[in-house]
Amino acid sequence: MGKRLDELRGHLGVVADLGAASGVLGWDQQTYMPSGGAPGRAMQLSTLSRLAHERFVRDEMGESLEAAESEIAGLDPDSDQVRLVRKTRRDFDKARKVPPEWVGEFSRITALAHQVWEKARAEADFSRFQPHLERIVELRRRYVDFFAPYDHIYDPLLDDFEPGMKTAEVKAVFDELRPQQIELVQAIAERGAPVDDSPVRQRFDEQKQWDFGMEVATAIGYDFDRGRQDKSVHPFTVGFGTGDVRITTRFDPNFLNTALFGTMHEAGHAMYEQGVNPDFDRTPLGDASSMAIHESQSRMWENLVGRSRTFWVAFYPRLQEVFPGKLGEVDLESFYRAINKVERSLIRVDADEATYNLHIMLRFELEIELMEGAVAVAELPEAWNTKFQEYLGLVPSDDAEGVLQDVHWSGGMIGYFPTYALGNLIACQLWAKIEDDIPNLKRVIERGEFGDLLGWLREHLHRHGAKFEPVELLSAVTGSGLTARPYLRYLREKFEEIYNL
Amino acid sequence: MGKRLDELRGHLGVVADLGAASGVLGWDQQTYMPSGGAPGRAMQLSTLSRLAHERFVRDEMGESLEAAESEIAGLDPDSDQVRLVRKTRRDFDKARKVPPEWVGEFSRITALAHQVWEKARAEADFSRFQPHLERIVELRRRYVDFFAPYDHIYDPLLDDFEPGMKTAEVKAVFDELRPQQIELVQAIAERGAPVDDSPVRQRFDEQKQWDFGMEVATAIGYDFDRGRQDKSVHPFTVGFGTGDVRITTRFDPNFLNTALFGTMHEAGHAMYEQGVNPDFDRTPLGDASSMAIHESQSRMWENLVGRSRTFWVAFYPRLQEVFPGKLGEVDLESFYRAINKVERSLIRVDADEATYNLHIMLRFELEIELMEGAVAVAELPEAWNTKFQEYLGLVPSDDAEGVLQDVHWSGGMIGYFPTYALGNLIACQLWAKIEDDIPNLKRVIERGEFGDLLGWLREHLHRHGAKFEPVELLSAVTGSGLTARPYLRYLREKFEEIYNL
Repeated sequence: MGKRLDELRGHLGVVADLGAASGVLGWDQQTYMPSGGAPGRAMQLSTLSRLAHERFVRDEMGESLEAAESEIAGLDPDSDQVRLVRKTRRDFDKARKVPPEWVGEFSRITALAHQVWEKARAEADFSRFQPHLERIVELRRRYVDFFAPYDHIYDPLLDDFEPGMKTAEVKAVFDELRPQQIELVQAIAERGAPVDDSPVRQRFDEQKQWDFGMEVATAIGYDFDRGRQDKSVHPFTVGFGTGDVRITTRFDPNFLNTALFGTMHEAGHAMYEQGVNPDFDRTPLGDASSMAIHESQSRMWENLVGRSRTFWVAFYPRLQEVFPGKLGEVDLESFYRAINKVERSLIRVDADEATYNLHIMLRFELEIELMEGAVAVAELPEAWNTKFQEYLGLVPSDDAEGVLQDVHWSGGMIGYFPTYALGNLIACQLWAKIEDDIPNLKRVIERGEFGDLLGWLREHLHRHGAKFEPVELLSAVTGSGLTARPYLRYLREKFEEIYNL
Repeated sequence: MGKRLDELRGHLGVVADLGAASGVLGWDQQTYMPSGGAPGRAMQLSTLSRLAHERFVRDEMGESLEAAESEIAGLDPDSDQVRLVRKTRRDFDKARKVPPEWVGEFSRITALAHQVWEKARAEADFSRFQPHLERIVELRRRYVDFFAPYDHIYDPLLDDFEPGMKTAEVKAVFDELRPQQIELVQAIAERGAPVDDSPVRQRFDEQKQWDFGMEVATAIGYDFDRGRQDKSVHPFTVGFGTGDVRITTRFDPNFLNTALFGTMHEAGHAMYEQGVNPDFDRTPLGDASSMAIHESQSRMWENLVGRSRTFWVAFYPRLQEVFPGKLGEVDLESFYRAINKVERSLIRVDADEATYNLHIMLRFELEIELMEGAVAVAELPEAWNTKFQEYLGLVPSDDAEGVLQDVHWSGGMIGYFPTYALGNLIACQLWAKIEDDIPNLKRVIERGEFGDLLGWLREHLHRHGAKFEPVELLSAVTGSGLTARPYLRYLREKFEEIYNL
């Protein structure tokens, strides 16, 4: 590595260290921090993110970046060095376009909006949150302007989470997906054979749930020497470099799925980050390629593995040993159907595999309409309820279980939601390729062995970190761009069988 | 508050936030961090401390400080504003005297020395550590030079932990203390009635030890809404502002004292920090007055309260309930004697109340001789063993249980040790005053009530944080400077009775 690149890495390392410190403080805030620590923690986190931003956009960084660019001229464009500089340039130029005044105001406005949203949701009172969301949409419009010209007003927002992805592409894929997914869910509701989920709706001892989840996470390959699991109200994954990537989970004493598939989901995220090339630590490459790629990994382990019959061939006898009184008399097939029950419901985070994307597409469309001005913030609850009826056949009884349910908008995160659905699609695109590459995949999973699968993911995906943009990575791995077809095929095959359609 | 002081507080807040973030990362490192996180954590901590130092010593801080100094001219010299500016000026001038190159080298050298020390201690091989300690002593000599002129070469080192305290003062106090403490310990060893500590040397269930420790910590006034207890290899207290001050403890399954008095010790530290005026948060006043004052609080709760007969009048019946099989037949008097058994031993952290200061005075004298050049690093093991024989009548069988036992020197912390002994002395000075001010102190403690005691400490000590220097504070509260007399009186009265001398 050259001297200039070394210097650049030094500067980037400081920014990365500040980011990692924020990560640790955030983890602590959600796991162990006593309530009295909250005001101080807010200050500490705000200082760290401000300093990280300042250090990243300062002139010294720009000069160091230019020097590194001269130094690497002529190297292989796919080398780590060139890609590191290119990714840094991309991030730097984006960050420099946003004036510090905007960053400061956005941070103030969203901190306040988040507090108000918590109260508004508790009281199911959208009008309370409305002026704050109006302010956020306005700030987001100003944000988008910094990146003009663009094809679509939503593009710069999407780009923060899916580098290089365009709104038009997502729209096209969702347009193909939407009618077919709605139709499948309707068919299940109207013509599906009944599925009994009472086996997973019993009282399950928390410690035993915990132990079994740890056993599964270890078996699928989550490395506890470089990670740990704790409890939190909202499960999440957070990494501070490849050597320390942590997950959290939560428990429902009366529903087995919550912790079990939550743990597999977060372990999927965490194994991705644990698998990144450690040379990328403390650089912008030591990250996921995108949020959708990240989500593809969590969904793959949660759903394509964890909710498959194959997986439970290996693990169901063990689960029955853990809960003999609850599951001893339930056969594998009944258990498989129980964990896969489809139900149209109001809350996204509780949604099953078949309905989940409908929650997302609804949000994506509303975000676009908000940004375009086609829907005013004041009209949002009605627009939400109308669409909800259309897609899921239900109307929320109040805004707490409707438009106020998610935290994202209160934090100014517009453009994030589609990545959840894209993750589901990408998981299935990857899975089709994996099935080609590992012909005996089902057999090894039935034996409880995941080394081949994880090895494949490491080799083709994880180790690259953020070296490649998501669409680039997807094409290199699967030979095609984003498409809903493998996902739709998977959904249909799985649920037509379960529901005997 | 004036505009300039506000600005200064803003600058200081950033430095304090970085310090708090380091605190959280350090806490995590010692409690929950997986082993794989170690290399990354070292980088993060180094970045945070470097940035905090940079932000504190930069010209902008100096200018803001000057502006604040003009603004407060004429205010009451004991007002919070004036004291904040004065303390900041003191810290700033000290920090500016140390060139960044020295700070960088010291940090590199001590990081390496710490690693080597761990191995050297494990292998009881001082020669391995010797060149690193030589380097550290040399760096510390250069450090001291930045503060020339001084009365004694050890003064600038001591001043980092005991602002305003002089080596000569400590020497004078220790010179009075040493012979009398040696004599007492010798008398106990030679003429004391035997004390049986088998009641506390049984197998005690860890969970029950934990629960009882939590009960005691809560009872004495440690606020768990603004703190928490976890386990760590080496117990410690760390605060991130008055809203979040945490303690850790460790367990010996075969010795009740370890966790029990460890928890009371750390809770004593923590209650001090919890009691600081919250207006001082994120400023240099939001700190302890000194390490000795800090230690006076931990030692007071651990020893003057926790190892007193009075305390156990209230808590012994409860402890017997928790361990009926172990302590049900042991009467209060036997238990009181058991927890107070005196034994000359090799390891400082395991030392009892009567011998502890001898371990400290030995280190203090060796540090001075090292700095003065009277003892070379190569001669240190022999000097240690000779002094140990003289003070404690024992010789370590190897350097691991001798000169290599403590972490401090490997981290470059020369000047810290005396604060442990001073803490013991100050605790007794304060206690004498408290007994005057709260005539029924014994009676309320016998009832398990600590509000009067904690209230007194809050009022006279805790709330002031670092507003006053330690000797200033001590004089204001007790009417006298540092003295060993109350401590010696306490030790003699207590142990002459227990050992029937």
